[in-house]
Amino acid sequence: MLLRDISVVDENYEVREHQNIITEGDAIAYIGPELPADYRGESYDGRNKAAMPGFFNAHCHVPMTLIRGYGEGLPLDRWLNERMFPFEALLTADDMYWGALLGIAELLQSGAVSFTDMYMEMDGICRAVEQSGIKANLSHGTSAFSPEAHFTDTNGYKGLAYLMEYQKTAANDRIIGEASIHAEYTCTDTVAREVADFARAHGLRIHTHLSETRKEHEECKARRGGLTPAAWMERLGVFDAPVTAAHCIWVEDADIEILARHGATAVTCPSSNLKLGSGIAPVKKLLDAGVRVAIGTDGAASNNNLNCIEEVNLASILQKGATGDPLFLGPRDTLELACRAGALAQGRTGCGCLKAGNRADLVVYDLDKPHLQPVYDLLSNLLYSAQAGDVALTMVDGRVVYRDGEFPTIDLEQAIWNAGRIRDEKLARLAANC
Amino acid sequence: MLLRDISVVDENYEVREHQNIITEGDAIAYIGPELPADYRGESYDGRNKAAMPGFFNAHCHVPMTLIRGYGEGLPLDRWLNERMFPFEALLTADDMYWGALLGIAELLQSGAVSFTDMYMEMDGICRAVEQSGIKANLSHGTSAFSPEAHFTDTNGYKGLAYLMEYQKTAANDRIIGEASIHAEYTCTDTVAREVADFARAHGLRIHTHLSETRKEHEECKARRGGLTPAAWMERLGVFDAPVTAAHCIWVEDADIEILARHGATAVTCPSSNLKLGSGIAPVKKLLDAGVRVAIGTDGAASNNNLNCIEEVNLASILQKGATGDPLFLGPRDTLELACRAGALAQGRTGCGCLKAGNRADLVVYDLDKPHLQPVYDLLSNLLYSAQAGDVALTMVDGRVVYRDGEFPTIDLEQAIWNAGRIRDEKLARLAANC
Repeated sequence: MLLRDISVVDENYEVREHQNIITEGDAIAYIGPELPADYRGESYDGRNKAAMPGFFNAHCHVPMTLIRGYGEGLPLDRWLNERMFPFEALLTADDMYWGALLGIAELLQSGAVSFTDMYMEMDGICRAVEQSGIKANLSHGTSAFSPEAHFTDTNGYKGLAYLMEYQKTAANDRIIGEASIHAEYTCTDTVAREVADFARAHGLRIHTHLSETRKEHEECKARRGGLTPAAWMERLGVFDAPVTAAHCIWVEDADIEILARHGATAVTCPSSNLKLGSGIAPVKKLLDAGVRVAIGTDGAASNNNLNCIEEVNLASILQKGATGDPLFLGPRDTLELACRAGALAQGRTGCGCLKAGNRADLVVYDLDKPHLQPVYDLLSNLLYSAQAGDVALTMVDGRVVYRDGEFPTIDLEQAIWNAGRIRDEKLARLAANC
Repeated sequence: MLLRDISVVDENYEVREHQNIITEGDAIAYIGPELPADYRGESYDGRNKAAMPGFFNAHCHVPMTLIRGYGEGLPLDRWLNERMFPFEALLTADDMYWGALLGIAELLQSGAVSFTDMYMEMDGICRAVEQSGIKANLSHGTSAFSPEAHFTDTNGYKGLAYLMEYQKTAANDRIIGEASIHAEYTCTDTVAREVADFARAHGLRIHTHLSETRKEHEECKARRGGLTPAAWMERLGVFDAPVTAAHCIWVEDADIEILARHGATAVTCPSSNLKLGSGIAPVKKLLDAGVRVAIGTDGAASNNNLNCIEEVNLASILQKGATGDPLFLGPRDTLELACRAGALAQGRTGCGCLKAGNRADLVVYDLDKPHLQPVYDLLSNLLYSAQAGDVALTMVDGRVVYRDGEFPTIDLEQAIWNAGRIRDEKLARLAANC
């Protein structure tokens, strides 16, 4: 595809106007002022539009779209125990497929090209990712409560084995399987150590939740002889693999050193962290210590959407507010987190910015909107004024997966209908069990 | 208009499905399950749609759309002194008209039906409000620095005189003129007292900025013998008129008592407060003390949009995060702030909720969106999952002012073109003056 006469947010996250972008296969072949006279592919009018690198949503539970808004207004423990867990226990792989497809539609239309996910029933989720054209690092959250349990007995292991098998036969590298430890409070020493060993032996990344709530953080220290979740994981070798650690709100200085020392990625999920009353991640301290920080939406059950544009905006302004420094995490630094850091956290090279040779993962914004005019500083408008409805086109690996309200790879009407059907069926079963 | 078979957020902010709404003139004539057989007016298909009360944006500087993103990345004092003030000094009434029109378009498409504004050049802003069909409480910010100055010498007085004259001949009550004291740090004792006296004598409301930054709050105490901005204003009689006090981030317990005692409205502006690094307003303390709290976008220069849906969502989740209480400020309580409190702060009766007899100020959401499905709790989806692009129709006083991307009262293309023209002209003049 040739995107003609478009503003481009370049590899340094600076704006260049009146550029032409040519994509070939899954890659960007050219970005620059020249317009090839003999181009024969599809041509896209980029006037009054801007091409941005796509977002890498670094922490998600994509099928949780199925339980969006369920249990609103309940306290956290009742929300989890009376609503989330009983509902999730009923979900099949087919349900996951529909929930994931609905969530992926949200992601694509808000500018995401990839997401890192932890959930269950990998086959259903894989199918949705494969069909939709988005990229994803997938994992089945490993949990274990019995001291006798071993990793190979867990559903986390089965999910990972499925993913590793899947990757062998996949026609592309869009899906990457990851190991996972759901969280410190849902795992044993034995299983966490085995996950770490397995990940190291197979060159896998590990996705986990870390110090999301003060309660979880303090209870770990009480339970584990003063060890924080990060210290406990480090001792078990978890950080010897590349780790994506979601939330990191209550990490202490020594925890931040652990994350930095091992090259782990901390993922801030501002909407979910605020909505659940969990707090605000110390992003400045993390960055100052050299920790890679990425941005995630978390699942739609606690967000309550997967709107990456909203999330990236909030990640920036919330940190300005929390630090009292309006210059902290400006547009360029925020894009570093949302794009480059997210791609690196997924272990993907040639991703996270727009330049020739990189993957063609890009998002086109329509600037012909009242809230995007006038333009003094386009990057400022894209980061602080834009909304998901401004995305005109999303391309992943050179393939158009969203354009002007249409999803070429997703039957949205069918996905919405099935999400409603699944809601009705599960609510009926839950009511019958009462 | 008849809105057929629509979900309605009713006067108690509870959802009723399969309702019919009939508007007549500027009011709601009927809401209920009955469908009149002989209705002859326009009929609107409300299936898979929801009607919400429109938002009352309680603090704005609407023409600042003209300087959206200008000076991004500068520290606050340089941003103000090198960018905002020199630019604003060049703005004419005609410029204000175009800036206001652009901002009103943003407001209408994100569900606002009214806004409270403080700026300059009332004739330009009045013209935009009148034409667009939105409601507004307008004021010219009064500032005075010389001890000899009197209110009647100020531009704030001239602006107010214009508004009072305008109201006498206006064909409707959409525009309400308010007195204003820009802020404690931009006013003298004499002028503040005179504004208060004038407002009381003429039954006017007063719009002001209060304790937005820690610096401003502390400097006031140092300058005014220990008086906080609220205590200083109380002593001068300002709170003897109904006051709309924007921000209130650094108010102390005694200040909160002042606001409560006088029935003032505190307006929280979360996006702007975070982006400028000002802090987080103590909304829970304010509400617990009985202070009316409303929600505002502030101006687009510090937000950087006028997206009311985003603002209302953020007002809710930010307070959950700041208090650590996920149950604080749920959907219904948030609507109380965004609609009812905002309308009361404007002194408007028959506004702020949908019921027969009230003004027909309503916003229709299209629920056929991936991020708004499935529905368990519609109010939760509307507050936490929706985005401005979901608004299908906005009606003010029974008149459709936004529908499916179109503004019947605003030539958006012309407004955008003029905003660009004004930018170019002013930048050229500023460059020439250097």
